[in-house]
Amino acid sequence: MEFPWDILKFRNIDGIPDLVLAIAQDADTGEVLMIAFTNREGIKRSLETGNVHYFSTSRKKLWLKGETSGHFQRIREIYVDCDGDAILFKVEQVGAACHKGYRSCFYRKFQDNKINIVGKKISS
Amino acid sequence: MEFPWDILKFRNIDGIPDLVLAIAQDADTGEVLMIAFTNREGIKRSLETGNVHYFSTSRKKLWLKGETSGHFQRIREIYVDCDGDAILFKVEQVGAACHKGYRSCFYRKFQDNKINIVGKKISS
Repeated sequence: MEFPWDILKFRNIDGIPDLVLAIAQDADTGEVLMIAFTNREGIKRSLETGNVHYFSTSRKKLWLKGETSGHFQRIREIYVDCDGDAILFKVEQVGAACHKGYRSCFYRKFQDNKINIVGKKISS
Repeated sequence: MEFPWDILKFRNIDGIPDLVLAIAQDADTGEVLMIAFTNREGIKRSLETGNVHYFSTSRKKLWLKGETSGHFQRIREIYVDCDGDAILFKVEQVGAACHKGYRSCFYRKFQDNKINIVGKKISS
């Protein structure tokens, strides 16, 4: 699968060049699961394998989401935003998207002047 | 409203420091509308006014979404992700989120080896 690379606008994140934003959304429920970054190689591998690959800005390397946890994100649909700096993956999430065991990384809600844990914890 | 600033992890985007990612999601339909950046001042103004304020990396200034278009994003809920570098605003979107007139900025879908326009255009 050849991707139309010229529509992408890569950004420099914390000194790391050539990244785009990558949002994972639950294809069934619409829940926003996580956001991270990826790059050209990550997109290629995502397309080839059908599983989302991100680029870790802390470890400075590509990672297959779920490689160690088993919590893969099977890609169902791929969207690109108007300015080409973000990709939206609609996915089938295996288990928890969040490394802290929550279904979504957005498990904290700001409400009543404080942060409340509202997410569903599904693994330890 | 005082925000728990210490849970945020600000990033440097294309040389601009102290930014966080800001996703807007339709509070009713779950559609991901757009992603951009904001900062401490943008979050403060968002909380004070109830309308999402972003920081433009091209114009290098804060902007009230809808200020010129009238397409405001009224905030209904606010979430923060696990590593604190992203905020999810669940919003009531007035009109089109995308400056190109589409309801969502993610109006292009990668499918059958090409990009297809699948989004709903609701303003010119």
